[in-house]
Amino acid sequence: MSVTVVGSLAFDTVATPFGRRDRMLGGAATHFALAASFFEDIHVVGPVGEDFTDEHVAVLATRGTDVADVERISGGRTFFWSGEYGWDLNARETLDTQLNVFEHFAPKLSAASRGCDVLFLANIQPALQRAVLEQCAAEFVALDSMNLWIEIARDALTAVMARVDCVILNDAELRQLTGRPNLVTAARDVLALGPSVVVAKQGEYGAALITSDGFFSLPAYPLETVVDPTGAGDTFAGGFVGYLARHLDQAGDPEVLRRAMAYGTALASYNVERFGTDRVAKLTAAEIHDRVDRLQEMTRFDHLPAPLVG
Amino acid sequence: MSVTVVGSLAFDTVATPFGRRDRMLGGAATHFALAASFFEDIHVVGPVGEDFTDEHVAVLATRGTDVADVERISGGRTFFWSGEYGWDLNARETLDTQLNVFEHFAPKLSAASRGCDVLFLANIQPALQRAVLEQCAAEFVALDSMNLWIEIARDALTAVMARVDCVILNDAELRQLTGRPNLVTAARDVLALGPSVVVAKQGEYGAALITSDGFFSLPAYPLETVVDPTGAGDTFAGGFVGYLARHLDQAGDPEVLRRAMAYGTALASYNVERFGTDRVAKLTAAEIHDRVDRLQEMTRFDHLPAPLVG
Repeated sequence: MSVTVVGSLAFDTVATPFGRRDRMLGGAATHFALAASFFEDIHVVGPVGEDFTDEHVAVLATRGTDVADVERISGGRTFFWSGEYGWDLNARETLDTQLNVFEHFAPKLSAASRGCDVLFLANIQPALQRAVLEQCAAEFVALDSMNLWIEIARDALTAVMARVDCVILNDAELRQLTGRPNLVTAARDVLALGPSVVVAKQGEYGAALITSDGFFSLPAYPLETVVDPTGAGDTFAGGFVGYLARHLDQAGDPEVLRRAMAYGTALASYNVERFGTDRVAKLTAAEIHDRVDRLQEMTRFDHLPAPLVG
Repeated sequence: MSVTVVGSLAFDTVATPFGRRDRMLGGAATHFALAASFFEDIHVVGPVGEDFTDEHVAVLATRGTDVADVERISGGRTFFWSGEYGWDLNARETLDTQLNVFEHFAPKLSAASRGCDVLFLANIQPALQRAVLEQCAAEFVALDSMNLWIEIARDALTAVMARVDCVILNDAELRQLTGRPNLVTAARDVLALGPSVVVAKQGEYGAALITSDGFFSLPAYPLETVVDPTGAGDTFAGGFVGYLARHLDQAGDPEVLRRAMAYGTALASYNVERFGTDRVAKLTAAEIHDRVDRLQEMTRFDHLPAPLVG
């Protein structure tokens, strides 16, 4: 199986209580690819500028990811984001966003990227997500988005959602999109649009999986030191979608979806231990398996019904 | 085994997006007792005013709870709290707090209350919690508190914490108390004071259990309709502490602690389905077991390690 991801390749300047990094490699497609490449062959589609060096491409190509559709725009500059995290790392302020080469991006997928089995539409303008969908007949499509598109392109976004299998959003975005304060109700509204799977990312609290006949919830892996939360959601998506791609013939199996949640959670937990891509680029399979094992251990309980009064 | 709870018996006026109720029965000790009474004999200690009727006492005495130490202060009025919840029920505003009979409360435990095996010090002034501790040689003591006492009586609070077995706080309160933004680190700081168990309540996200050698996390039970979150934390504590009391000879067993978390979570989920005490007062044992079963089902996964690249 192969997975194509379309989304941002970026330079991020990030300040957290643990330090600051300038113009490090980031972007949704980057974090997704680094995580998903543990599972399947990955094709990355997205534009970069002339400031995107061969060293950046080499990180992107970790574990064999295909970078042929990373389009270098001559005279262009790479997408740039700058943000600062507060004391508890749960809230961040965006200080600067420069679209740069994304301003005129029109996705053009090569035959290899078009021929993928699984497609991940990272957080980009819904019209671009639609343009990618129309080039690609993947068996399974997942989509991420953000508050900005819910505000200014709601109809386009819900139209794309209606054509995908899986929607991955923050719980606050699910509430914003549906106008439903209740998570379960909000997720059901999204399922009603067409997708069969909704994943609600809940930041430090973990993530929930909602399908028409089930609910599954997994906490974030507990860490004593979180250095940089940037990219955690995309890393989660890379692990989740990557695992599903690896088991695509059983992607509707609730057990497979649950394990995909666990792999996404484990990968995201490593991502936040260092700045940018530093940790996941150097991660090993054994480390991932270890953390999935621990997640299983720290969430399981056996119910021996207590004798109760009444 | 028997459990004594010392804390507030109150009248609550609550407005939520689902309606409003005036002066309904509430208070930490009330919600705790209603939940814990499914497991063991409960003794409630706390002051009420002349406005606290026999009907209120009858609700408190559900499932045989001993109300002999509910002290009716002649000429006094019952503790009163009024609050309003916002759209998503995650934030609430306190509109009014009237201490009334609590202003001059000095706990006096009867022989039956003093002789308990387990003591729950609900959220009251730390000096009063200490006064109760000194009257009672319970084998296992758990404590709740709130942001106000962390602000104005921190030293008294940490001194009491050093003498209990279990601290149950909201995650925001754990951060405030320790100055640690990270939940795991904050919990370890509390363990270092003396307790062997810390429970971090996380509202709609569930709760986490931290001991010196383990971490366990359980989501809240997913509900499509939450009517009134008031008392959810105390109901959780009642289920958690009640279950531990029922299995006191194994209260250090991680499996028992985990099941206690599940019973607390199940009970809290019923509490929020109706205003005040309406739901838990009429709850059945079968309903509790059913929801613990469902919680187990919606949190379990089996790890079949995926073959990974790298």
